[in-house]
Amino acid sequence: MADEVILLDFWLSMYGMRVKIALAEKGIEYDYKQEDLSNKSPLLLEANPILKKIPVLIHNGKPVSESLIIVQYIDEVWNDKSPLLPSDPYQRAHARFWADFVDKKVSGVSRKLWTTKGEELEAGKKEFFETFKILEGELGDKPYFGGETFGFVDLSLVTFYSWFHAYEVFGNINIEAECPKIIAWAKMCLQKETVAKSLADQKKVYEAVVQLRKIRGYE
Amino acid sequence: MADEVILLDFWLSMYGMRVKIALAEKGIEYDYKQEDLSNKSPLLLEANPILKKIPVLIHNGKPVSESLIIVQYIDEVWNDKSPLLPSDPYQRAHARFWADFVDKKVSGVSRKLWTTKGEELEAGKKEFFETFKILEGELGDKPYFGGETFGFVDLSLVTFYSWFHAYEVFGNINIEAECPKIIAWAKMCLQKETVAKSLADQKKVYEAVVQLRKIRGYE
Repeated sequence: MADEVILLDFWLSMYGMRVKIALAEKGIEYDYKQEDLSNKSPLLLEANPILKKIPVLIHNGKPVSESLIIVQYIDEVWNDKSPLLPSDPYQRAHARFWADFVDKKVSGVSRKLWTTKGEELEAGKKEFFETFKILEGELGDKPYFGGETFGFVDLSLVTFYSWFHAYEVFGNINIEAECPKIIAWAKMCLQKETVAKSLADQKKVYEAVVQLRKIRGYE
Repeated sequence: MADEVILLDFWLSMYGMRVKIALAEKGIEYDYKQEDLSNKSPLLLEANPILKKIPVLIHNGKPVSESLIIVQYIDEVWNDKSPLLPSDPYQRAHARFWADFVDKKVSGVSRKLWTTKGEELEAGKKEFFETFKILEGELGDKPYFGGETFGFVDLSLVTFYSWFHAYEVFGNINIEAECPKIIAWAKMCLQKETVAKSLADQKKVYEAVVQLRKIRGYE
């Protein structure tokens, strides 16, 4: 029996995009279900009753939540091609540390760029660049965070790139001027078809963020 | 050559206690170094330059940070006994989800019990019990979160038990009255020598929290 794979997602989510990249890397076909986050489906509420959040991967009826946990699950189940985590335990721990860093730091500092203004925005910009400078330091001269090949940390971070245009407009910043290595790295990731087809278009994300700011009163 | 294992820790940390349990479960001897958190050692700053936090495990000179990442590392390197994560990918994802839930929810709601007062404390108590009720639901009628055997989620949560007396006194709550299953589960975990010897004494934690509250002006 073929695997039944369903992804509950919302196209703007950088967390959902991570799962799309992982599925693309493994060449897995799946049924993509777009959620209306203001009116969540019974399937989502049943599949993730605790957090009620996308993305959720449902594999042969069994739900897995939280993007980094889903990606590790995909890597463990479909372990015959395109390994996402390194096989060496120390390298795995290192990759988990940096993906966790992206979750704990990048999400928060990026959000400030389109949800705040005045002093809070200024502090947000400073933190944004500090965070990405740390990431540039970790990238060093390697082509990917994973070394010679695209991996777990690359996948965790690159999905934020689809929001970069929105961050630049609303934060009034130039990311390439401050963090050229990050932009070069992101562009290299995008040369991979698995990444290019999984990331939302920067202009469409920007337009959606314009609407989100109106709805939430951040203007 | 024997493995050289060093744990940089501070005895009050429930995150450090997790690593102590994992090392005890695997029967690994290690050098325990107590950090002075107001004057962190050069070794800690070098081993965890990004977060500068304990616990850090240094294994043959290589540092691993973040307690759940350290525990997974220990489980992967010393994989010949006492598995902490299940071998099945779905069960592993499930265990990671709940350990992540403990990190994201339990830490924050517990902290409120000894750092806030008035309305904020009342809200904190409510959230604390809501969170532990969710955990009781997940435990169900199983002896351990891991099922028949002590595992990753048990280890992640049980270390908070050493702070329960402090939570009860400063939060003016009775945890057993509201969440009897959690207390029964914790007591069963404590029957394991690996847990009992790794957890800080509740009364000592309480005395330390009395001092912390004075120093930080929470009284």
